[in-house]
Amino acid sequence: MEENKQGLLIVLSGPSGAGKGTLCKELTRTLPNLQYSVSATTRDPRPGETEGKDYYFVSRERFSELIRQNQLLEHAEFCGSFYGTPQAAVEQAVNQGKDVILEIEIRGAEQIRQKFPQGVFIFIVPPSLEELKARIKKRGTETEDKIRQRLDKATDELHYVSEYDYVVVNDQVQTAVEKLKAIITAEKCKVKRRSVEF
Amino acid sequence: MEENKQGLLIVLSGPSGAGKGTLCKELTRTLPNLQYSVSATTRDPRPGETEGKDYYFVSRERFSELIRQNQLLEHAEFCGSFYGTPQAAVEQAVNQGKDVILEIEIRGAEQIRQKFPQGVFIFIVPPSLEELKARIKKRGTETEDKIRQRLDKATDELHYVSEYDYVVVNDQVQTAVEKLKAIITAEKCKVKRRSVEF
Repeated sequence: MEENKQGLLIVLSGPSGAGKGTLCKELTRTLPNLQYSVSATTRDPRPGETEGKDYYFVSRERFSELIRQNQLLEHAEFCGSFYGTPQAAVEQAVNQGKDVILEIEIRGAEQIRQKFPQGVFIFIVPPSLEELKARIKKRGTETEDKIRQRLDKATDELHYVSEYDYVVVNDQVQTAVEKLKAIITAEKCKVKRRSVEF
Repeated sequence: MEENKQGLLIVLSGPSGAGKGTLCKELTRTLPNLQYSVSATTRDPRPGETEGKDYYFVSRERFSELIRQNQLLEHAEFCGSFYGTPQAAVEQAVNQGKDVILEIEIRGAEQIRQKFPQGVFIFIVPPSLEELKARIKKRGTETEDKIRQRLDKATDELHYVSEYDYVVVNDQVQTAVEKLKAIITAEKCKVKRRSVEF
């Protein structure tokens, strides 16, 4: 019985404020075979964010160049900033049997689905809209106007859940992480992902 | 975000000697919401098997009656004996939100797939054919002729893996059980199984 040779491409998406980032960090911290795909973005770093670890912070000119050179697996504009996933690094890792996790916005996830239908698409949701609002406000790095903009968008985005394989409610981080780990384990047991030989 | 109201119907199948029974017992022992579906069979009890717990041991006449009255979810002949799953008990449990696990032979699983495509179909395989032979022999309750018959059948049955959702190699019981638990957790996160309301 052969093991899977290809790693999984795990796409974590969902509305802003659902807690994708925290879950993503906790997963990569505890799963040795899982690596985080670092995105490129044109937005300013938030306090505590590190270049090359959280994001590649690039200028708008550089971002346009990456698009033109077809070096992005997906890219999207979100609240006035651009986000994109460098393609080569992801493909290389998956082909080497590493699992790769992407934390991206809804529209980015849609583009990945076209290129990688074999990806595992997981939608992260907050326990309630009230909790979502509280979380976006708590972040405290944005103006009132930006917060309202994010909340409106997040509410709309909840409807995209139907296009995903899995939905995980991020009520308690540890519970959500356990569910995500179970999804990864289960996906590796899928018959369609294995070459069966006796 | 509503929870799933229906329980899962989990179908554990695979060749004789793969260890389905052991896995099934360990799962029902440790998962409070999971209940074992007790099959009816016309074969003689093996040492240690209990009526109504391991099987309902019935006569061939009674078994025919259950088929005629359409009271079986599936039934199959295996090495000269009949096995079947009483339908009403399974449906009632699933509708009440309980998860039900069935441990059945390949042909029985095929019938379930027709009636319950929303079931979770898991194929259990031994780590190798040599190990499979050793396990069937070790059971020591059957004649040489029956053992050979079972082994030939088991080898053929391995090809049915492609019709299943998941495959779990039963190398170490505890590892296999963890994978099965992960599959159950993941299936409960599937978007298609949930009614999403905000």
